[in-house]
Amino acid sequence: MATIRGRIAARSLVAGARLPSVRALAKSSDVSVSTVAEAYSRLVAEGAIVSRPGSGFYVGREPAPMQLSAVGPKLDRAIDPLWVSRQSLETDDAVPKPGCGWLPASWMAEQSLRKALRTASRAGVDSLANYTSPLGLPPLRQLISRRLGERGVEAAPDQIVLTESGTQAIDLVCRFLLEPGDTVLVDDPCYFNFQALLRAHRVRIVSVPYAPAGPDVEALATTLAAERPRLYITNSAVHNPTGATLSPVTAHRVLKLADQHGLVIIEDDIFADFEHSPAPRLAGFDGLDRVIEIGSFSKTLSASVRCGFIAVKRDWLEPLIELKIATMFGGARLNEELVLSVLGDGRFHRHAEAVRTRLERARRSTGERLGELGITPWLEPRAGMFLWCTLPDGSDSAELARAALAEGMVLAPGNAFSAAQTAGNFMRFNVAQMDEGSFAVLRRLL
Amino acid sequence: MATIRGRIAARSLVAGARLPSVRALAKSSDVSVSTVAEAYSRLVAEGAIVSRPGSGFYVGREPAPMQLSAVGPKLDRAIDPLWVSRQSLETDDAVPKPGCGWLPASWMAEQSLRKALRTASRAGVDSLANYTSPLGLPPLRQLISRRLGERGVEAAPDQIVLTESGTQAIDLVCRFLLEPGDTVLVDDPCYFNFQALLRAHRVRIVSVPYAPAGPDVEALATTLAAERPRLYITNSAVHNPTGATLSPVTAHRVLKLADQHGLVIIEDDIFADFEHSPAPRLAGFDGLDRVIEIGSFSKTLSASVRCGFIAVKRDWLEPLIELKIATMFGGARLNEELVLSVLGDGRFHRHAEAVRTRLERARRSTGERLGELGITPWLEPRAGMFLWCTLPDGSDSAELARAALAEGMVLAPGNAFSAAQTAGNFMRFNVAQMDEGSFAVLRRLL
Repeated sequence: MATIRGRIAARSLVAGARLPSVRALAKSSDVSVSTVAEAYSRLVAEGAIVSRPGSGFYVGREPAPMQLSAVGPKLDRAIDPLWVSRQSLETDDAVPKPGCGWLPASWMAEQSLRKALRTASRAGVDSLANYTSPLGLPPLRQLISRRLGERGVEAAPDQIVLTESGTQAIDLVCRFLLEPGDTVLVDDPCYFNFQALLRAHRVRIVSVPYAPAGPDVEALATTLAAERPRLYITNSAVHNPTGATLSPVTAHRVLKLADQHGLVIIEDDIFADFEHSPAPRLAGFDGLDRVIEIGSFSKTLSASVRCGFIAVKRDWLEPLIELKIATMFGGARLNEELVLSVLGDGRFHRHAEAVRTRLERARRSTGERLGELGITPWLEPRAGMFLWCTLPDGSDSAELARAALAEGMVLAPGNAFSAAQTAGNFMRFNVAQMDEGSFAVLRRLL
Repeated sequence: MATIRGRIAARSLVAGARLPSVRALAKSSDVSVSTVAEAYSRLVAEGAIVSRPGSGFYVGREPAPMQLSAVGPKLDRAIDPLWVSRQSLETDDAVPKPGCGWLPASWMAEQSLRKALRTASRAGVDSLANYTSPLGLPPLRQLISRRLGERGVEAAPDQIVLTESGTQAIDLVCRFLLEPGDTVLVDDPCYFNFQALLRAHRVRIVSVPYAPAGPDVEALATTLAAERPRLYITNSAVHNPTGATLSPVTAHRVLKLADQHGLVIIEDDIFADFEHSPAPRLAGFDGLDRVIEIGSFSKTLSASVRCGFIAVKRDWLEPLIELKIATMFGGARLNEELVLSVLGDGRFHRHAEAVRTRLERARRSTGERLGELGITPWLEPRAGMFLWCTLPDGSDSAELARAALAEGMVLAPGNAFSAAQTAGNFMRFNVAQMDEGSFAVLRRLL
């Protein structure tokens, strides 16, 4: 019953589709005919399927709405990508969240934001109340173009499309490139919301192991040949969750394989502001030919003033703008004005520098204190807020996360990031969200 | 060639799919075999399709990205829904746009917005920089619940999901309810972006004529029986583009038919603030059983501070929140705070009242002046900014829109709103966007 319900919810069985015969299903699932017959008759009673005598069983007319949690493998709640996101978002602002993917608000560009709001309160009325142009505020796109250039990514202002967030930017590009049933490649491990987002696009997810200098190139070659994915989503500079950095050699090899296999790549670069000096970017090497660059300001500027962007080759601009208008209509003009104002404030750059230094110190001290508990970082990241760690003595991170939640602490267990479920012994820690209490809970539970 | 390219772009022919044989296509499209053979060989040369000798022609491996403008019937640019939206968004703030669907910024709640920004500049740091909860800011949801109650729609605060705009709210609900290939019903005429948005969901669009008291109920009954749409998208209180208002009798009949046919309804209620006294709502009659209510603040408060909402029955909340997290992650917290602040400002209510009166006067005077040009409103709207008019002597509105654009004026010709292309003699005028120059251009061109 769960299998059939799951397939209906996931739309792999659509309204009106014929179910396998009782006999065929019994054989393929290795259960008795009477078990299947009983399951079917209960599903008929539920209204999920209908029986047409002499013809067979069919999915009922009214399809169930999309249930992301029913799509994909059935996971323990503690490692379900959606559930981990939701726990982090639902927990009160004041509670430290070692499992979440952002800095505490007190680490953000508070003074620059206050100044930007005061400036906005005196802006022209169109800035306050009118729609923005389809691409988004021109001076902000100019500034983003310059900032991308500093990281080696050449994108003219008219190749930059503003969106309402980094997530929404990825979503828009997925809509543009994917059709249901396509195959998409992610890293193992990868940012857990990539999996949830891809489920919403009804695509099949495959993964390659992530090594300290980027994806495992040999595994990538094999997977591209065998699975023929349309798209690969990754982070290069500060990889989530591992904190790893792509090497120039790996960048070259990944792009060579992508060329051979007609693979498009989304490079999600939302942690760029955490870098002391820029690491290689796939989009920089490739020149935005088959790489689409995504960015946002949620991690260093504000997660409340939402604004993201897409840098893309000119061939793809027109249909992407049309899709933006159809699904969002106008953009978030005020947010664009505020981001522009903060980025233009000298204080913001001193603030960003201070955050980088503070994170460096927090990574070091958190690494040491975790080490005392037998929790070992997989590598020493060059930048960012994450430490991707193994737990002592092969402990199960889902179990630890469940126990921690009972004490009010949200953790991010390894398998939430692992499409192949190979990270049961890993945990991602956010060094900016660890306080004395967090260490005390960990010590007690381990 | 155009037909095959269009079907590939629209994904009705997907990568790897086999094309009809040369002979079959020649027969079905009533052209010669050699014409089809020539077209196929040119498409092979272009790389759009591949030939497998002895087997036939197939769509090439790398699918084209989604091109909304290639989906659906090929329309004249002047009446293409996306193109009209884009013209309006791209035209400079200062130019009057009789074809657009919003008020000039100078009509908006400027003073309340300035005050809200000053207040926000002194808010707690979490308001400025942190994510919001999955449903969105609780006090704003409370306030929206109260405002919905005043229009007869009962929705508790925990049945309200905040989004980044009204368009995005509809998009999220469409994702939740629809699967590719489903049939969706719209009014004829309807807001043109419904059509563009639905194309992005790869669904089939059917329409029913809109009468002065709501959809034509007899046509609705026939269409529901024949086409079995999954969803109906409409506006009830101030219908776009006609300005018509749903009558209680029609509301009852529409809902009765919806019950009989398992139809879900999205009621897009973004013009609610323009009403002097509330008209019937489908969501009010139905009690949010099969109606989902959508709203936003872009039309009266600000189109720059983007914020929309969905009111929905509790059964559908959980999967909708999951879909929101997967595709948007956090919401636009600052925008939610600003909207809350403006709605709580006494001046905003006086402002909204003044806008209603000003619109009433503008509708009257614009109606008179259009009348002098032989342009006749289809009905006298009770509220809002639109006059849906017939042109004199059966003039073609697409032709007029094209000529007006050459003079820098964006108009909204009837067929941009008409899925069935039955409104070639109609034009939608925005009474808040007409100045002396607009009338002069119209007079000259007619």
